[in-house]
Amino acid sequence: MNPDDIFLTRAIELALQGSRQGDGGPFGAIIVHEGRIIGEAWNRVVASKDPTAHAEIAAIRMACASLGHFHLSGCVLYASSEPCPMCLSAAYWARIGRIVFANSRAEAAAIGFCDDDLYAELNRTLTERSIVMEHRALPGALQPMREWSGNPQRTPY
Amino acid sequence: MNPDDIFLTRAIELALQGSRQGDGGPFGAIIVHEGRIIGEAWNRVVASKDPTAHAEIAAIRMACASLGHFHLSGCVLYASSEPCPMCLSAAYWARIGRIVFANSRAEAAAIGFCDDDLYAELNRTLTERSIVMEHRALPGALQPMREWSGNPQRTPY
Repeated sequence: MNPDDIFLTRAIELALQGSRQGDGGPFGAIIVHEGRIIGEAWNRVVASKDPTAHAEIAAIRMACASLGHFHLSGCVLYASSEPCPMCLSAAYWARIGRIVFANSRAEAAAIGFCDDDLYAELNRTLTERSIVMEHRALPGALQPMREWSGNPQRTPY
Repeated sequence: MNPDDIFLTRAIELALQGSRQGDGGPFGAIIVHEGRIIGEAWNRVVASKDPTAHAEIAAIRMACASLGHFHLSGCVLYASSEPCPMCLSAAYWARIGRIVFANSRAEAAAIGFCDDDLYAELNRTLTERSIVMEHRALPGALQPMREWSGNPQRTPY
């Protein structure tokens, strides 16, 4: 087996283990840095009562703790299924270089997960979305941004 | 001031407080349930070395811990800035009913944040994205999904 398939198989094993013990949906993920696993997790939405506890988010957080940095440049994310938009966005914020996944969003949709709908929803305008969204440009709202961008000590991420 | 503006002002105050102490970007968020704040946070990406530590994600996690559930149906998310796709997706997974925000994604882009680009990037096909993405449909990859969907004890979310 090539290294990609070995790591991807590990992500699938985690998906199986986590969902068998009832922690959440059947999803697993690992983060690999220089050929070594530095983060691995399965979905724990149900066990932790946390809707953000997807496997990829948890694996990214573990990998960042391992490297001591909020960026994972050069790392690879292996996911048992195509990341949902929350997890894919997290991978961008983490500056992950490459993502390998086994099951598609269509396969997740077939067992009742809304990943595919969510990609479509994000592409809609504010007024077309199922969550009601209101933009209220309060006076003073820009002050935190102005202070931050004017601070030479700030840490961009 | 109407209640929306009172809560939104609180989110802006959190943005200011968090970024003044160097915890991360100038972003704050609160979750309101039946008129009461049940989660509030500011961005702590830098302080916690965690790229997922956006204000909205942290506020959602706190609110879920408060209600003891992974869904926040009927809750309102107030954010100092338009949520990035990671945080907006988290709001969908949490079944949040309504989102009110003060600054737009264009204003975040103007001070160097990639939210706007990220919305565009998510809408691209796998091969057009800046993160290299590979779909490897391994034999056995669907087993976790099949077991989960065939388990009458499963908890959908």
